[in-house]
Amino acid sequence: MGSNRQHLRDSSNRQLIERRTRQEEKSDTTKPSNISSFYKLTVDERLDKLKDFSGLSNDEVELVKSGNLPLSSAQRMIENVVGVLPIPLGIAVNFLINGKDYLIPMAIEEPSVVAAASHAAKLARLTGGFQASSTDPFMIGQVQIVRSKSPKDAEKLILASKKEILDRANEQDPVLVSKGGGAKDLQVRVLPTITGTMVIAELLVDCRDAMGANVVNTMAESVAPMLEKLSGGRANLRIISNLADKRVARSSVRFSKEALGGEEVVDGIVDAYAFAAADPYRCATHNKGVMNGVTAVCLATGNDTRAIEAGAHAYAARTGHYAPLTRWSKERNGDLEGSIEMPVAVGIIGGITAVHPTAKICLKILGVKTARELGEVIASVGLAQNLAALRALASEGIQHGHMSLHARNIAAMAGAEGETIDQVAAAMVSEKKVRLDRAKELVAQMPVSKNRTAAHQEANQPKKHP
Amino acid sequence: MGSNRQHLRDSSNRQLIERRTRQEEKSDTTKPSNISSFYKLTVDERLDKLKDFSGLSNDEVELVKSGNLPLSSAQRMIENVVGVLPIPLGIAVNFLINGKDYLIPMAIEEPSVVAAASHAAKLARLTGGFQASSTDPFMIGQVQIVRSKSPKDAEKLILASKKEILDRANEQDPVLVSKGGGAKDLQVRVLPTITGTMVIAELLVDCRDAMGANVVNTMAESVAPMLEKLSGGRANLRIISNLADKRVARSSVRFSKEALGGEEVVDGIVDAYAFAAADPYRCATHNKGVMNGVTAVCLATGNDTRAIEAGAHAYAARTGHYAPLTRWSKERNGDLEGSIEMPVAVGIIGGITAVHPTAKICLKILGVKTARELGEVIASVGLAQNLAALRALASEGIQHGHMSLHARNIAAMAGAEGETIDQVAAAMVSEKKVRLDRAKELVAQMPVSKNRTAAHQEANQPKKHP
Repeated sequence: MGSNRQHLRDSSNRQLIERRTRQEEKSDTTKPSNISSFYKLTVDERLDKLKDFSGLSNDEVELVKSGNLPLSSAQRMIENVVGVLPIPLGIAVNFLINGKDYLIPMAIEEPSVVAAASHAAKLARLTGGFQASSTDPFMIGQVQIVRSKSPKDAEKLILASKKEILDRANEQDPVLVSKGGGAKDLQVRVLPTITGTMVIAELLVDCRDAMGANVVNTMAESVAPMLEKLSGGRANLRIISNLADKRVARSSVRFSKEALGGEEVVDGIVDAYAFAAADPYRCATHNKGVMNGVTAVCLATGNDTRAIEAGAHAYAARTGHYAPLTRWSKERNGDLEGSIEMPVAVGIIGGITAVHPTAKICLKILGVKTARELGEVIASVGLAQNLAALRALASEGIQHGHMSLHARNIAAMAGAEGETIDQVAAAMVSEKKVRLDRAKELVAQMPVSKNRTAAHQEANQPKKHP
Repeated sequence: MGSNRQHLRDSSNRQLIERRTRQEEKSDTTKPSNISSFYKLTVDERLDKLKDFSGLSNDEVELVKSGNLPLSSAQRMIENVVGVLPIPLGIAVNFLINGKDYLIPMAIEEPSVVAAASHAAKLARLTGGFQASSTDPFMIGQVQIVRSKSPKDAEKLILASKKEILDRANEQDPVLVSKGGGAKDLQVRVLPTITGTMVIAELLVDCRDAMGANVVNTMAESVAPMLEKLSGGRANLRIISNLADKRVARSSVRFSKEALGGEEVVDGIVDAYAFAAADPYRCATHNKGVMNGVTAVCLATGNDTRAIEAGAHAYAARTGHYAPLTRWSKERNGDLEGSIEMPVAVGIIGGITAVHPTAKICLKILGVKTARELGEVIASVGLAQNLAALRALASEGIQHGHMSLHARNIAAMAGAEGETIDQVAAAMVSEKKVRLDRAKELVAQMPVSKNRTAAHQEANQPKKHP
């Protein structure tokens, strides 16, 4: 424990140093992320803005736009490849986090998410944006030892050999160690289970800018033979834990009541939070709203979305009561204050983050310099996403925002094509009947030639959008 | 409660009828999914097999292969579109579920997942494959009523108007009602929270073949004014719950100890399960392994992965102890028996499942006729994925399987190109040093012309693969 405390002191010093370095770097970025009427631009105009903001090359712009992934690359990533599944990639604007501007790439199929994040970030900007922080990027590698004759003795013997075990682990990745990362500590637990008492040895590994699954798994496997000898048991599982509660990002934000639409909306959001805190049925959807933002950024940057989801929800359940990842409260002056705390096991090197061409460009668009910075951005996007959903739910309802794009999908399903899609969708939204049966009626009613013209005029109207 | 029980009786009758219909349909499908050495085929050869198995057209084959999503389609799905993020799409083979053969499209960036699912399904096939079942597709729509003067009275008054409330909800979607779905029941809870006592009215909606978020949200919004009048309070949130514990799929499977590699492996898998059942740190990763399969199928079929993740993990936490979604036990003869139970809020119509061109083709590849069938397939894939991970972890370790593809990614990162990638990767795997620093050394050592030839020979060796 002594060395653990020393370690924590060291790492909090490192945190301060990193924060300072990052503050200094801020001056590099002078371009604001609140690009006026971004949603009204064409795709090419948006890409021009991205090029300007993030210094993308023409080739990179072309790659994002085409969504091209050579089959040879796909085949290096997974097995039995037959093709590629394309996910729409949108950009959330307006984000200001720790005083730095970010454009946020989000890969997601769900309507409203990108618009909602952009809208929440726009309101947050008025009051200084998001303040984010994070712990050092520690992951836990577990080695499960079964059938040890004396688990208590095994615990003592393993802890007595801590240095040798950590050295063996660190031999697996000299590069990580040279960058200040590596296995920093070892803890041991004696765990009663339905098949007997087990000894669980856990490596604490500072993964620096990698997500860390590969290095942590390799380290856990490498120390297993030592642990078997020391414990007299058999090493069964040797693997990372996705409940990354030693790699947590936090973000907080304040919204003025005026920006949100008045104190009644603030009360509604706080009531919504109270509902989630009291009821797991609501809480699952509350956290799902957070993860809409989190997972979309993870997917865009080539991070493992199943890992981040498991970490977030298991963290939400850690007290024995499945709880919201965010908290909302009303300040004395009636403004809304919110915060989030969640594990963010994400990397900017290793895995596919560095080999997927579009994921690489998404990291360039974000402009994050470390995995911790990416985690802080992701937590802030989750917080923004949650605010946007709660604000809509506590005022006009969620369907209002969803309907416009949903209606276009329904129109397309009903057989509308090209510009007719817009007209059928607009008619359904104005009737508040966004349904396949109604869409089919509308499509059937339309004389093709006339409707193409009408639809064209409709399409040229700027749409209502945050 | 009386009508609720009646309802449950009705629905279990309906389940039986549907199961029978499905059994009859089975005879349609005569093609087996255990395509010999699928992993050794080229992409075009695999697509030929898919064409044959699922009746894909040439256009559909071309679309899967190219991963093309027109920007105009992407822009109907989400906002601020700048392009497309391509995810590798692989096919898991060998699946036999309720006696029917399936090829499973999986969209995922993580190595080993598709191979592992295929391998587990191959072993399961020897003992009859997966037996799956499911409840009717009920989702819960919540209306949160705050500041009701008398929550207890409100509860009574709302329940007394149940019929009118359900009628109003069902007016929102006559098509769903005509297909046997719609709002079937209403329940009311009085919920104490940190901001006061709330009344929570919950619609139980049979969503048939839709995921249901849009229809349930629309229904919840439509009945809110009635609930406000009856309760004297204010309706705040009106939205679906993602904790879909009324829409659950189950699957079970048996593996012979010989197929798994002996009774010691069976014991190792049961010990692995016991570890997950006792420890949330392990459990998060246990469930993450399940979700590798579940989420990959959801992503491929255009389903909302955040919704399925939230539902699964919140369900895992429902007892107050975050628990494994699967269970594993040893039978008397030493074989392994496993089962899974999880919410599967997935659709085959609505949302983007029906408008995303590649997602549509993935549904065609699967050949599922109902959302319930899709849910049963997904639960079976999750169970298979879990078995494969536990089997590897309890025997050779997870890195063995991961390393071969991971090594190719690292080689590519180190600057290797084309066939040199294979050679550098093979060298690192044989040395058990799969690291960027070593990859760079190897790349630097290689005289380009000579290595191209060597790499070519290497690439023509059939790889070891399940």
